[in-house]
Amino acid sequence: MVDKPAPDATRRSERSRRAIYDAALALVAEIGYPRTTVEGIAARAGVGKQTIYRWWPSKADVLLEAFLDLAEEAAREAGHQPYEIPDTGDLAADLKAVLRATVDELLDPRFDAPSRALAAEGLVNEELGRRFVAHLLEPQLQLYVRRLRAAQERGAVRPEVDPRIALELFVSPLAQRWLQHTGPITHAYTDTLVDYALYGIAPR
Amino acid sequence: MVDKPAPDATRRSERSRRAIYDAALALVAEIGYPRTTVEGIAARAGVGKQTIYRWWPSKADVLLEAFLDLAEEAAREAGHQPYEIPDTGDLAADLKAVLRATVDELLDPRFDAPSRALAAEGLVNEELGRRFVAHLLEPQLQLYVRRLRAAQERGAVRPEVDPRIALELFVSPLAQRWLQHTGPITHAYTDTLVDYALYGIAPR
Repeated sequence: MVDKPAPDATRRSERSRRAIYDAALALVAEIGYPRTTVEGIAARAGVGKQTIYRWWPSKADVLLEAFLDLAEEAAREAGHQPYEIPDTGDLAADLKAVLRATVDELLDPRFDAPSRALAAEGLVNEELGRRFVAHLLEPQLQLYVRRLRAAQERGAVRPEVDPRIALELFVSPLAQRWLQHTGPITHAYTDTLVDYALYGIAPR
Repeated sequence: MVDKPAPDATRRSERSRRAIYDAALALVAEIGYPRTTVEGIAARAGVGKQTIYRWWPSKADVLLEAFLDLAEEAAREAGHQPYEIPDTGDLAADLKAVLRATVDELLDPRFDAPSRALAAEGLVNEELGRRFVAHLLEPQLQLYVRRLRAAQERGAVRPEVDPRIALELFVSPLAQRWLQHTGPITHAYTDTLVDYALYGIAPR
């Protein structure tokens, strides 16, 4: 690692890095996690495998960063900050906005196929599953925890509610429909989840 | 097929059928769905592969019935009817009871490993995924739809609520925690999900 690389070298690195991410995501989508190798990623990205090993210790690490990069890009394209849930003071509206953007991302084929392949591997490979949950999924869920806590402080969420469980009422149904094809994924659907979670299904 | 088989033949068939189910579930847990074959199931069950093909057209069909059988057995062991959600008139109590039994089943290793292997395959093999959802998961979810409709008729659930979406507020969080190891699975947890789903997280 050079502290201040020449501009050309930086550009070359950035290009290689992106080519490696793209290759890793494409490969895992096409042939699955177990058959994806650092060698295969290097060949597809047009770099030597030492280039990959210089930056990442394993294929799991390459994929982890490739997904983080993909999520940031999707957030930027959707016109919002990647690691933030808006706080306009209207909890229902803010949750609906973020979940609508998530629906769009889940339906994006660039995201769908590699994420599905990785999630499938995580189901049977507990170590990998826990690692990706800890680095990719849980940080996203913690954004909801923070937003729900802010609402709780203002009295918009009951004080005894555990935000880490409450968020699952709207996040998990969307995740299950996406993962297991148990139902259509639309903005109307996630809006409904937010309303049911906030106000309950029993009469008020 | 013989209309009235001799008692001995019936007993033999029943024994073979059970050995085939056990072999199919064990194999899919150990080596995954793609590498599980009808030949492998037959060898492990100690039957000829023609015995399997006489009853089921494919490995997917064997596994489908093996899982149905497993679910029925788990329900019987838990002391309740396999295809029924109790209706005591107390919706919260009935949902909590069924979800507690589901927690116990999900934590049972006989169920966990094969179900996880099959769910993983369903994530990347859409045809298989849709088939297992249609035959194994959706019929279970429809039991909740019926129970919620009965509650709706008595005014315990708001009339405008869609029961097929409402059930996901407590079923999907449990499914995601189980599938993706995103959090512990306990009776207290599913009790909490039911309370949040019924009464909402916003103040009443």
